[in-house]
Amino acid sequence: MPAAVVLLSGGLDSTTVCAIAASQGRTIHALTLDYNQRHKGELDAARRAARFFDVKEHLIFPIRLDLFGGSSLTDPTIPVETSVPLEEIGQAIPTSYVPARNTIFLSLALAMAETRGASEIWLGVNSVDYSGYPDCRPEFIGAFERLARLATKMGVEGEGIRVVTPLMSMSKGQIIRAGLSLGVDYSQTLTCYSPNALGEACGECESCRLRLAGFREAGVPDPAAYAAGARQQTKTRNNR
Amino acid sequence: MPAAVVLLSGGLDSTTVCAIAASQGRTIHALTLDYNQRHKGELDAARRAARFFDVKEHLIFPIRLDLFGGSSLTDPTIPVETSVPLEEIGQAIPTSYVPARNTIFLSLALAMAETRGASEIWLGVNSVDYSGYPDCRPEFIGAFERLARLATKMGVEGEGIRVVTPLMSMSKGQIIRAGLSLGVDYSQTLTCYSPNALGEACGECESCRLRLAGFREAGVPDPAAYAAGARQQTKTRNNR
Repeated sequence: MPAAVVLLSGGLDSTTVCAIAASQGRTIHALTLDYNQRHKGELDAARRAARFFDVKEHLIFPIRLDLFGGSSLTDPTIPVETSVPLEEIGQAIPTSYVPARNTIFLSLALAMAETRGASEIWLGVNSVDYSGYPDCRPEFIGAFERLARLATKMGVEGEGIRVVTPLMSMSKGQIIRAGLSLGVDYSQTLTCYSPNALGEACGECESCRLRLAGFREAGVPDPAAYAAGARQQTKTRNNR
Repeated sequence: MPAAVVLLSGGLDSTTVCAIAASQGRTIHALTLDYNQRHKGELDAARRAARFFDVKEHLIFPIRLDLFGGSSLTDPTIPVETSVPLEEIGQAIPTSYVPARNTIFLSLALAMAETRGASEIWLGVNSVDYSGYPDCRPEFIGAFERLARLATKMGVEGEGIRVVTPLMSMSKGQIIRAGLSLGVDYSQTLTCYSPNALGEACGECESCRLRLAGFREAGVPDPAAYAAGARQQTKTRNNR
């Protein structure tokens, strides 16, 4: 069985990726980056997913991105945006963009892949229902694969690494339907950038809005816990 | 004055790079990666260099590469090689190769550059008198620049980042002469992969051998402290 590193944040997308990798018979080395993000509940969600999919290894790797700052997810002085209408999400790079995040995460996954003998990195990036982050686009992924081939012993002496992005061209609704068909329990995933003290989602940040619109598209209710009054904030996404 | 992130390990090469960046009027944000390497004395050497060149900021960033392992520099069960003859260094990838190290380091430097508004990353890689690491070659650097342009807000909205590698095509002797002309005190740099408890260099690891051959080429004595009897291990490098 081919071994794969799966970047697992505990959110909707990466949990679905983990389900797809498991369904395709991969031996999974899950890598969760603990970057002092605001929503530490993500780590618990990642642990639940790793257990559910019976991964071979789950490494929670500390990485102090707060020492760089520059994002509402790593710098408490930058507020999380909660007023961007659904149809405007993805039009510009939002304050939740974390500088160089996916480059850093893929680099760490590359080190894990090389030391574990894995020839694949699976990653839940998506360029359809996404926030407009530059490091979620297919051209970025292709450039990383080329870099990885030049960067590593496995690339120089062997075949290099394949970055597998099964969600890249799927809508959020399609992602949810795919995950449901593979047994993903989305009540156990955390998507919100700004959950309350009870761990309930805000329903207003860009990440919640995309998620809720995805469940509407999929025609199923979102089983996640939302703060009282949050859900009516959303409407149908119309930018595609 | 253009701002630059300088990757500063405290070794001979990166200290020379810092000197060159300072001499060319850069405002320097020095980034030192504390990756639980065996030779923690490197960090002190980096601090001395940062002070000497009066950098604007010196960030020592913890990164637990030992959680991946796979290198004699991060895994105490893998011995540091001390018997590779000078003429064979660089012919194969040695056990001191740290999986994906420069990819990870450049990614972190990219995050620092983006949050500090720096348009350059300076890095002391060298493809002449080097250990054979794949991530020290010019093609790797070029691929990283292309990746960085796609990965970041600064790349999408502006000009991206330039990775400056002034040592790439220099011999070790040329590097040393350049540093001396800029006032580098090489007694304050640490190169050895396996120093003793006194912080004295072994003179036998690949890094020491390349350094000592470089000082011979430059025609000046190496002011670093070596363990008793270490220096006679080296001879002239003849693979170029």
